[in-house]
Amino acid sequence: MFYELSVVQATKMLHNLTAILAKGALFAESKKIEMSVLLNARLAPDQFPLLRQVQIACDTAKLGAARLTGKVDSAPKHADDEHTLAEIQHRIAETITYLASFSASDFNDAATQRISQPRWEGKYLTGDEFLMQHVLPNLYFHITTAYAILRHNGVDVGKKDYLGAMPYKV
Amino acid sequence: MFYELSVVQATKMLHNLTAILAKGALFAESKKIEMSVLLNARLAPDQFPLLRQVQIACDTAKLGAARLTGKVDSAPKHADDEHTLAEIQHRIAETITYLASFSASDFNDAATQRISQPRWEGKYLTGDEFLMQHVLPNLYFHITTAYAILRHNGVDVGKKDYLGAMPYKV
Repeated sequence: MFYELSVVQATKMLHNLTAILAKGALFAESKKIEMSVLLNARLAPDQFPLLRQVQIACDTAKLGAARLTGKVDSAPKHADDEHTLAEIQHRIAETITYLASFSASDFNDAATQRISQPRWEGKYLTGDEFLMQHVLPNLYFHITTAYAILRHNGVDVGKKDYLGAMPYKV
Repeated sequence: MFYELSVVQATKMLHNLTAILAKGALFAESKKIEMSVLLNARLAPDQFPLLRQVQIACDTAKLGAARLTGKVDSAPKHADDEHTLAEIQHRIAETITYLASFSASDFNDAATQRISQPRWEGKYLTGDEFLMQHVLPNLYFHITTAYAILRHNGVDVGKKDYLGAMPYKV
């Protein structure tokens, strides 16, 4: 289920995020405000603004898959220098393209990998723990917060935009 | 991984939610405001307030596990009649107790279950789809939104409160 959660479902959520941001752009246009107002909007003075929420969502997905498969060194680098909607949408698109480079078999040993990152100062989580307690909660946190910032500012987004299409069967 | 995600990790997140709400209560006390102000706070006029976000988070966890294991009929009923912090914390505690009644083997057939709910009008998702595309995104959505409402109102919560303790190893 590693591949399905950290690649397939993460890709779906990034597409949903793209669509949510596009709704934000339509709203800004209709209100004759600069998109940068929304991209710099925050829910609290000491919480990251929308643009940074999107950057972190992308990094969570990119580094989640990269670390679970032992491919951090070859993951694309991002300087976090986006400022415009076009730039941040491009960042999402690049992340989606990167996720598409994985196959299910890349994750065969993911569950038992020892996974660390610089800020953990040498400590590690198993791949199981990393996926379930770090990657997924963080990915959904930052996408939900991006959604919340737009909704709080009046953008007409709803739960269906966040969840995306469901593969209902009859 | 069904049990670990929909029971173990969901339980952890509900404990985190309990602690986040407790921080909200301390904040209300320090500011000499009624907790009901926070429980009825919203990020947007047409989005559910904090209390309802918590109710839905609980239902998502409860019904997620219940539906994946074919035990909806025996799941505890909740009338959504909570109004106070004590009542909503009790709802979370009851949900945690219910999740504790499951064992990993209850989920042996979860992946291929056909899962539906009343509003889907007879359509269904497989258990795999239901967990990954419905339960997890919704659970994290409502817990993140509860957190965001409190943070937006000035409560001193941070990402560590949302994620909870990590089982770092050296």
